[in-house]
Amino acid sequence: MESRHPVPNADNPWKTLTRTRIYENAWIRVEHNEVQRPDGAPGVYGTVRFANHAVGVLPVADDGSTWLVGQFRYALDAYSWEIPEGGCPLGTAPADTAHRELREETGLRAAHLMHIHNVALSNSVCDEQGSVFIAWGLTEGEAEPEGTEQLALRRLPLREALDMALRGEITDSMSLIALLRAPMLLKRLDIPDDLRRALRRGLE
Amino acid sequence: MESRHPVPNADNPWKTLTRTRIYENAWIRVEHNEVQRPDGAPGVYGTVRFANHAVGVLPVADDGSTWLVGQFRYALDAYSWEIPEGGCPLGTAPADTAHRELREETGLRAAHLMHIHNVALSNSVCDEQGSVFIAWGLTEGEAEPEGTEQLALRRLPLREALDMALRGEITDSMSLIALLRAPMLLKRLDIPDDLRRALRRGLE
Repeated sequence: MESRHPVPNADNPWKTLTRTRIYENAWIRVEHNEVQRPDGAPGVYGTVRFANHAVGVLPVADDGSTWLVGQFRYALDAYSWEIPEGGCPLGTAPADTAHRELREETGLRAAHLMHIHNVALSNSVCDEQGSVFIAWGLTEGEAEPEGTEQLALRRLPLREALDMALRGEITDSMSLIALLRAPMLLKRLDIPDDLRRALRRGLE
Repeated sequence: MESRHPVPNADNPWKTLTRTRIYENAWIRVEHNEVQRPDGAPGVYGTVRFANHAVGVLPVADDGSTWLVGQFRYALDAYSWEIPEGGCPLGTAPADTAHRELREETGLRAAHLMHIHNVALSNSVCDEQGSVFIAWGLTEGEAEPEGTEQLALRRLPLREALDMALRGEITDSMSLIALLRAPMLLKRLDIPDDLRRALRRGLE
């Protein structure tokens, strides 16, 4: 029995009787667990452990623009418009990954980054965690996509990206969380003035 | 090569060379794919296909209360407060599952249900899709949790649940999407008057 979670949680009402590693690649490890359920009955639990921490970053330019990235998602078998996103290897700071993914996917350099949410993306069988950021103080440059990525890029007012989310044209969970949160940031008294101005312009 | 997605998407820049079923239980199927990446280089892609569609439902009582469900999430190895959620078997309407999960986990019967978001929960290797609803016109009854569930239930003003999300005390993706969306529903002119009143009371 091996786990990235070596300290069992005392409050866990599930008992793991046996754990078998079924599959592993660079991104995921699949385990089959024979368990005793919270009601005492026997059961099985297949779990998917993620090697990377997910990162999503909503860029907001001084003029209120944001950028969406379009790509075909192999696992979903569908095209998807999303905020810039990527995987953060364990041991790397999510903020560093946010800067890197923003630069690779959009060419943008961000002077400022603020963490807005931690997310458990899919709570039934996955242990994947994500961090969502907002980036501002942006400088444009050349995008540098990876070989696994064939990306389309779209610059649009933040309001239009939010409207796409409200109309159901954006379904990616971290993108929805970032876009739905953006208007609420304006109610916070402690956000920097330049972010407030950019959000106001973008959401008018 | 077998798949629940028998019609290959012509726009897919990934080519699947071989697909092998690695693991299957009642909830997930894990497949290992040898692929040609969008840039033409060879690669592998492990995917997790979900048997159920995820459903989350945000209940809002006439007095502006909502309910959160607390439970230990085995895959996350952590306790989590969430809106009522559950899995919708293929072939079952997500709205029916929303009614059933609400009744089982909270005892609530809802006269009205409105779909607010479709969500791709985790876009890297999972094909899991979710539907998020808001429920109102509520009648209280007895909860009927399943044997796999050991649930805590908390009734609180919608505003307090939203504040938990804004403070980072709620991290579940579908719960964040439902709670962050709720204030924005008030800006829609086409929502029913009783839902508008309940949301106003809950968010004051």
